[in-house]
Amino acid sequence: MHHLSFASDYQEGCHSAVMELMLATNRQQHEGYGTDAICESARARIREACSCPNAAVHFLSGGTQTNVCVLDALLVPWEGVLAATTGHVSTHEAGAIERNGHKVIELAGEQGKLLPARVREAAASWAEDANHDHMVQPGVVYISQPTEYGTVYTRSELEGLRAACDDYGMRLYVDGARLAYALACDVNDVTLRDLARLADAFYIGGTKCGALLGEAVVFPNPNTCPRFFTLAKQHGALLAKGWLLGMQFEALFANDLYLHVGEPAIQAANAMRQMLVDRGYRLAFDSPTNQVFVELDDAVATELAKHVDYSFWEKPDSSHTIVRFASSWATTPEDVRALAQALDEV
Amino acid sequence: MHHLSFASDYQEGCHSAVMELMLATNRQQHEGYGTDAICESARARIREACSCPNAAVHFLSGGTQTNVCVLDALLVPWEGVLAATTGHVSTHEAGAIERNGHKVIELAGEQGKLLPARVREAAASWAEDANHDHMVQPGVVYISQPTEYGTVYTRSELEGLRAACDDYGMRLYVDGARLAYALACDVNDVTLRDLARLADAFYIGGTKCGALLGEAVVFPNPNTCPRFFTLAKQHGALLAKGWLLGMQFEALFANDLYLHVGEPAIQAANAMRQMLVDRGYRLAFDSPTNQVFVELDDAVATELAKHVDYSFWEKPDSSHTIVRFASSWATTPEDVRALAQALDEV
Amino acid sequence: MHHLSFASDYQEGCHSAVMELMLATNRQQHEGYGTDAICESARARIREACSCPNAAVHFLSGGTQTNVCVLDALLVPWEGVLAATTGHVSTHEAGAIERNGHKVIELAGEQGKLLPARVREAAASWAEDANHDHMVQPGVVYISQPTEYGTVYTRSELEGLRAACDDYGMRLYVDGARLAYALACDVNDVTLRDLARLADAFYIGGTKCGALLGEAVVFPNPNTCPRFFTLAKQHGALLAKGWLLGMQFEALFANDLYLHVGEPAIQAANAMRQMLVDRGYRLAFDSPTNQVFVELDDAVATELAKHVDYSFWEKPDSSHTIVRFASSWATTPEDVRALAQALDEV
Amino acid sequence: MHHLSFASDYQEGCHSAVMELMLATNRQQHEGYGTDAICESARARIREACSCPNAAVHFLSGGTQTNVCVLDALLVPWEGVLAATTGHVSTHEAGAIERNGHKVIELAGEQGKLLPARVREAAASWAEDANHDHMVQPGVVYISQPTEYGTVYTRSELEGLRAACDDYGMRLYVDGARLAYALACDVNDVTLRDLARLADAFYIGGTKCGALLGEAVVFPNPNTCPRFFTLAKQHGALLAKGWLLGMQFEALFANDLYLHVGEPAIQAANAMRQMLVDRGYRLAFDSPTNQVFVELDDAVATELAKHVDYSFWEKPDSSHTIVRFASSWATTPEDVRALAQALDEV
Repeated sequence: MHHLSFASDYQEGCHSAVMELMLATNRQQHEGYGTDAICESARARIREACSCPNAAVHFLSGGTQTNVCVLDALLVPWEGVLAATTGHVSTHEAGAIERNGHKVIELAGEQGKLLPARVREAAASWAEDANHDHMVQPGVVYISQPTEYGTVYTRSELEGLRAACDDYGMRLYVDGARLAYALACDVNDVTLRDLARLADAFYIGGTKCGALLGEAVVFPNPNTCPRFFTLAKQHGALLAKGWLLGMQFEALFANDLYLHVGEPAIQAANAMRQMLVDRGYRLAFDSPTNQVFVELDDAVATELAKHVDYSFWEKPDSSHTIVRFASSWATTPEDVRALAQALDEV
Repeated sequence: MHHLSFASDYQEGCHSAVMELMLATNRQQHEGYGTDAICESARARIREACSCPNAAVHFLSGGTQTNVCVLDALLVPWEGVLAATTGHVSTHEAGAIERNGHKVIELAGEQGKLLPARVREAAASWAEDANHDHMVQPGVVYISQPTEYGTVYTRSELEGLRAACDDYGMRLYVDGARLAYALACDVNDVTLRDLARLADAFYIGGTKCGALLGEAVVFPNPNTCPRFFTLAKQHGALLAKGWLLGMQFEALFANDLYLHVGEPAIQAANAMRQMLVDRGYRLAFDSPTNQVFVELDDAVATELAKHVDYSFWEKPDSSHTIVRFASSWATTPEDVRALAQALDEV
Repeated sequence: MHHLSFASDYQEGCHSAVMELMLATNRQQHEGYGTDAICESARARIREACSCPNAAVHFLSGGTQTNVCVLDALLVPWEGVLAATTGHVSTHEAGAIERNGHKVIELAGEQGKLLPARVREAAASWAEDANHDHMVQPGVVYISQPTEYGTVYTRSELEGLRAACDDYGMRLYVDGARLAYALACDVNDVTLRDLARLADAFYIGGTKCGALLGEAVVFPNPNTCPRFFTLAKQHGALLAKGWLLGMQFEALFANDLYLHVGEPAIQAANAMRQMLVDRGYRLAFDSPTNQVFVELDDAVATELAKHVDYSFWEKPDSSHTIVRFASSWATTPEDVRALAQALDEV
Repeated sequence: MHHLSFASDYQEGCHSAVMELMLATNRQQHEGYGTDAICESARARIREACSCPNAAVHFLSGGTQTNVCVLDALLVPWEGVLAATTGHVSTHEAGAIERNGHKVIELAGEQGKLLPARVREAAASWAEDANHDHMVQPGVVYISQPTEYGTVYTRSELEGLRAACDDYGMRLYVDGARLAYALACDVNDVTLRDLARLADAFYIGGTKCGALLGEAVVFPNPNTCPRFFTLAKQHGALLAKGWLLGMQFEALFANDLYLHVGEPAIQAANAMRQMLVDRGYRLAFDSPTNQVFVELDDAVATELAKHVDYSFWEKPDSSHTIVRFASSWATTPEDVRALAQALDEV
């Protein structure tokens, strides 16, 4: 009766380590709004994992909410955010950033990545325009690590973005909704420390990475937004039971779990990629993390959908469909075998 | 080592019925964003409990977020919301409603209640002012059931507010953050059905009422805001794991649990009130729900604070303090006895 | 055929000095958006009149627009503005300040004035509240000089407000929509220099004070909002023909005209007050500027309205009405005599 | 000493007919906020010119302000506006539309025009996307007539846009900042009546078209936004002296002046185009209205700038510059001859 699903990476509850901590503390009393001891402990663990002892760390509920709050903290009213056209803030947040007053300046990316040269071009274009006082000023560069296409920035690319930000008075913000899957990925060379060193703000994704819910915002410089607590409150983003969010990260950052929690997803995705190539399917993007993009004949896609949930990605032509299979921390080798079998039976 | 706390009603995790359901389904896969079967079931249960088969039901994370989203749905840009000066939207949401574009028109309440006569006066004042096109139009009446002072509206008062709204083209919105404690309270005569019959929107509080987190928004008329899903997304209020919220209410509305989950809190609060009066303390308000307001000598308040967490409420004069003890679904008779003992030892 | 009107002070066009300059330059070409030579000259004149050689001066079109833009410049998102309940931002701007994201924290005034003690009380109340991170922080004190009741702040009161702002980290903003009428008023001891010395921002009203339209915003410290130009553009507040606004102030600040342009209004208002008292009418407020508030029998008010336009102010009881007669730079002694005659004939 | 300027079309004051009316009525008293008789008369003239007897007509001050207010009136919060990347709302309003909460969905135009096929493609893309509840919904199509490139839509193209709007539940809004120059242009076949028939809202530009300032918003269906007055007030867009704006249009719509006021500009632009082609310069766009775009050698552009003001448009390659010469209702044949002479002397 259970339909095999690779539709997304937020379909299961939480990692057993998280659930155990929740169970153990369920009837304990905690201070509200993230002022409790568990949140403090989780913050300390995150600061240590980032080698950033003074970082301000805040726990929020979800990705769009986090993007709204952090961009609100980083931007002044007349500034906008540079993002790839494929960035989550550009397309799938229902205009939340604009609702909050800021233009998303969409730039062409490369397989989901916004590269330094493109950022420099956009910033220079504003800076050199004689009419720029009538234009939205680029204030923040938004990127996702990994990207919405499953690709990862290299450390060198991040350094390039940092340099571009420095040269043009911009800030760098990294959306890490799926960060565990970049950290667990073979080709990745960007660590939490690199993010803390290079970004003005980033978030460590929980919802898609083993937590029941929650995202951990890190401002490496604690003076970046000293009143972030009140700012989040204004956006309805403070949970009374803030300790619930802290607890997720307390569990995920004990014993370096966060660095490994994505490994089953990467193994599953790698196995899927190999399994697909073995069967002669064409991978649509070179994506090393937990998202697998493959081109199927429309007939195959339709038939497969009866047995397996996946995401429609796009139509490259009139007879093919690119689909996405997402694995997660909860995906098992059996799931991959079941997918292979379903494909073989199509 | 555990400090006895009556500081608030959101300090524990969740009711065992909720936790059991979460455990049982933790590794199951669910559709995202509240489109899953558990959310559908929870919606059906809520509709039935409200005798409102067509109601639109949405699950959000917390109270301020819910107030922002619902008021956004109910108000046009040039309208404001009438609220008691003591209303949550007036004072303790960091200006979230104004941040979202709407004036909170603060009116004097009576022990936390905004009564029909006051609402009519404010609405008439706008309607009769020759300059009213230059003024914020009253668009929504916001009340809390129970109020921030622990008092409850009677059915008759709610009907009076409904009539005032009808007469002046306004909508009625009920913040039910602590609704379970009104429903479980001896003097209450307002049912979920009454709310569904009389309000344009209300929410059934989960966070403070036995859920891990979550609030259930009910629009008795499903056409009130057909695009509430996208509106919530714009506010960063949609959880990817929407099923997590639905699950809370699935558990709370099975076997009428929600109607009873507040009973331990009411019993504890009643016991505290009796215990306090028995010891000669003066109750500051006639509050029949889970919040107990009592006047203490400053010295008593200071000493007690070393052993028991409570909330400071206000200073009625230079030598006394009014404090609040809040009970919850998780409060036990032992907790009340421990409080009595702590008071006796002060 | 012409109905005698004291309904407001913005009913006529502009002072002849303004019109002459407009005529003389109508077919000249000017740079756009306030970058022209006339605007520069007007700015220099205003800086000199304020003894504030570094002030940033910007020209906008109207009062509500100016309040929106200046408060946007002075407030961070989680701050609100303290204002008298009778302040223009509190009541007659259709919620423009809230629409722009900020709460107007309304405080009781005295005959339109928000006094230092009240401001200190409100700021201290926030500062001392343990929950203040959940509350709107007082960020700006908004006052009008003269007030909406025609009263004027003394220099000493302004100094008291400045000190309160300094003590609580707030800014002081003065709405000078009718400033010329304060400057021309007998009892006034507040000069443009005082405003520049004491306020973080103020505006010199043009629309009601002899200009065709326009208000001149002064930031005594030019670093207060270096990007005000772009901020104004975002609010749709920049006129392409910015020189049109500069020209108003070029004419009004040549030969100290602005210091005297209100004198006919004050003389007319003084004459009206004397005339009314002579006839046994009761003045409702002790208002020394161009607004005269008088209590009339309802029958008199109704009959008079057939011949003279005035503003309804309020009903002090069931048989009387307080009405307002506003004079302006364009009011003549004949107008006052005509009003006396109309009253005599009622 | 006077520098010849073709930098823009808003550099002069107003047409003599406007100035005469302003002079004649300068000391008369008018009702405030556009409720006066002159505004009423101007509205009636505009309704007649549009053959739209029930239209709601509102007078605002400038173009960006008008775009903000009208889009606020036409869009619900989760909708965005489709516009050409070259549209004024896309680039030169400092993010005013986003500041007001709405995404500008930028689409590739053709010489400034947003054609029906492109609009349909974007609307269909949203409608067909399974995730569209997470995306900004196209709500309004924004076009300029004439465009920022001086081109004009044909009646057939407008009908195509109207049909696309009807098919996808969108509204059509026409920015007529320079509308007089389209109406006076040889190739134009779109009348005011066509605009009233096809658009949900449009504005008749005054600032650039012979008025001192002001834009006339027309809602052909008066029920489109019955509370536009208050909405405008919220944006600081209501002038106390609203009659000042009405007066501009009273003069411009007497004797069909508005239909002809752009003719000198078109004659001048046509003469410039011919003069430039005669001298071997390449026109960059086929632009039939008051803006002339020509490619110059960089050296010529630099030398010419010493004698003539023009606008930089873009650099097509490393040794050429495209510049814009804008004529206006105030441009004379002598001005064109002076430009020719300046070019000959370069």
